[in-house]
Amino acid sequence: MKTRSAKLALVLALLLGVICSVHADDPLPSWNDTASKKAIVDFVGRVTKAGSPDFVKPEERVATFDNDGTLWAEQPIYFQFQFAIDRVKALAPQHPEWKEQPPFKFVIAGDMKALLADGKSMMALMAVSHAGMTTDEFTKIVKDWLRDAKHPKTGRLYTQMVYQPMIELLAYLRANGFKTFIVSGGGVEFMRCFAEQTYGIPPEQIVGSSSKMKYEIHGGKPELLRLPEVQFVDDKQGKPIGIEIFIGRHPIAAFGNSDGDQQMLEWTTAGSGARFGLIVHHDDAEREWAYDRKSEIGRLDKAWDEATAKGWIVVSMKNDWKTIFPPTKE
Amino acid sequence: MKTRSAKLALVLALLLGVICSVHADDPLPSWNDTASKKAIVDFVGRVTKAGSPDFVKPEERVATFDNDGTLWAEQPIYFQFQFAIDRVKALAPQHPEWKEQPPFKFVIAGDMKALLADGKSMMALMAVSHAGMTTDEFTKIVKDWLRDAKHPKTGRLYTQMVYQPMIELLAYLRANGFKTFIVSGGGVEFMRCFAEQTYGIPPEQIVGSSSKMKYEIHGGKPELLRLPEVQFVDDKQGKPIGIEIFIGRHPIAAFGNSDGDQQMLEWTTAGSGARFGLIVHHDDAEREWAYDRKSEIGRLDKAWDEATAKGWIVVSMKNDWKTIFPPTKE
Repeated sequence: MKTRSAKLALVLALLLGVICSVHADDPLPSWNDTASKKAIVDFVGRVTKAGSPDFVKPEERVATFDNDGTLWAEQPIYFQFQFAIDRVKALAPQHPEWKEQPPFKFVIAGDMKALLADGKSMMALMAVSHAGMTTDEFTKIVKDWLRDAKHPKTGRLYTQMVYQPMIELLAYLRANGFKTFIVSGGGVEFMRCFAEQTYGIPPEQIVGSSSKMKYEIHGGKPELLRLPEVQFVDDKQGKPIGIEIFIGRHPIAAFGNSDGDQQMLEWTTAGSGARFGLIVHHDDAEREWAYDRKSEIGRLDKAWDEATAKGWIVVSMKNDWKTIFPPTKE
Repeated sequence: MKTRSAKLALVLALLLGVICSVHADDPLPSWNDTASKKAIVDFVGRVTKAGSPDFVKPEERVATFDNDGTLWAEQPIYFQFQFAIDRVKALAPQHPEWKEQPPFKFVIAGDMKALLADGKSMMALMAVSHAGMTTDEFTKIVKDWLRDAKHPKTGRLYTQMVYQPMIELLAYLRANGFKTFIVSGGGVEFMRCFAEQTYGIPPEQIVGSSSKMKYEIHGGKPELLRLPEVQFVDDKQGKPIGIEIFIGRHPIAAFGNSDGDQQMLEWTTAGSGARFGLIVHHDDAEREWAYDRKSEIGRLDKAWDEATAKGWIVVSMKNDWKTIFPPTKE
């Protein structure tokens, strides 16, 4: 018996050793062995190694991630805008007056050019699709949409339009004691409908834009009614403010892709001690989309210049990523 | 050698057993063995026992706590108001014009009655003491105050005016897999100056009222400037809204002491599954203060009626608590 247990223990130890060493060899298998990956691994090593001059206590290992264009795609339009458009289409039969009324008539006619010509149009669609219902009703509508809607170009579910290398990066940071947060201009309640399952990020670690709400009691049951008014915009200057109000800690690493993330990266990397800033550059027209300084969606211009000036890592999706999207289940 | 290690292991095991059994016997030593304590222990047992029909997964064990009057005292005035008054006194030498100017002249003259006669007066003091500086500067001012200022009645530091039974309750819930949050009308950045050390609640688990802020770069260094405008009021109806925006989960247990907590307890206890609502009733004039339906600070009136109607636990500080405040270091 004793010899048998000893053998078993040895086998188990070897197996564990193999598993651990595979993991240690390549925690980021979808990343090519380029400077970007080396910079990530180097930073994580420096802040986690006991005795390192850059060591950071686990509770202070806060990493913040933008969502649109950083964790999932954002072309041809932000997915939350597509949700609003689809929702207006679904509601149109109950609103015959919309046939004559801009911007709703653009949606019904499928005239995207007219719809996107005026920034106010999308806001009107957002108000109709995101307000006037309880928080529970909204969550159900979004989850139903995420279950069924397909991306117009790839035919994938939107939750399969996430970046596999970033999913690995999130897991790698968490395995190294980091607490990962989303800090996005997207709606906080919209993101919570998929972020836990898709990214492993729980609801209480998501910072986003929010609507005003009204607390009401209907038939003895309390409800939160979503109002068509903005409570907080978590974009540009709003990102460091959102970090301060919601998280209350200074991140040590921040990840973005556009000028909307510039202030978050400035705020994060300005702190004392080891800091890390990373920008995902969309330069892969073949496997994804190529856009930067002149794009209406996800413009990367000033933040790119600042990245160069300050030594933030600029990831080339084309050169640094082995794969873009996760494998789909057939 | 072998026998010695075995003996050592046995001693260690026994010691651990003793420690654990003391803990298991009485996780709440400052609570008397009354119905309130039994209800708490019963609820925790039901939601944590595998196989129980009321079992709740650890990630959904969210418990929210009011701060003023629930975790620390709030008499004779909210401690954050006392901070504002002390701050105005400290700034007065730089503002000779305040001698003639209400409400500042009331502070300088020590006329509390005149000061508290008009609700707008405190708001003016809050603006002067809480805005016009960076977030880092504000944190330093609050921490200095907490280090030095003493409560006018007890002579204790304000961080020693916390309720020992509630400190034990927080630890007991966390030991049972709960995530504990503060959801308070107090300023979120004010509370973060002491909550981690005092309550073991980290910054990212504190929901509170907040000011608007401005992001600025001074000498290449990004800063957040606090503005004298309100961003969000986390009180009454604002508490379920704050829970929804900041936490994004439905709490299964909520703890408060006043009408400001009524909606949080309604929202928490209305959900499906096992739920727990608890109100701390300040009925101990000898060891603390006795106040409820008619108090200006921490009024407990409508929430008390609802507690009775809905079976929320009403804790008598006089009868249910063995001790009120923690022992002080002499």
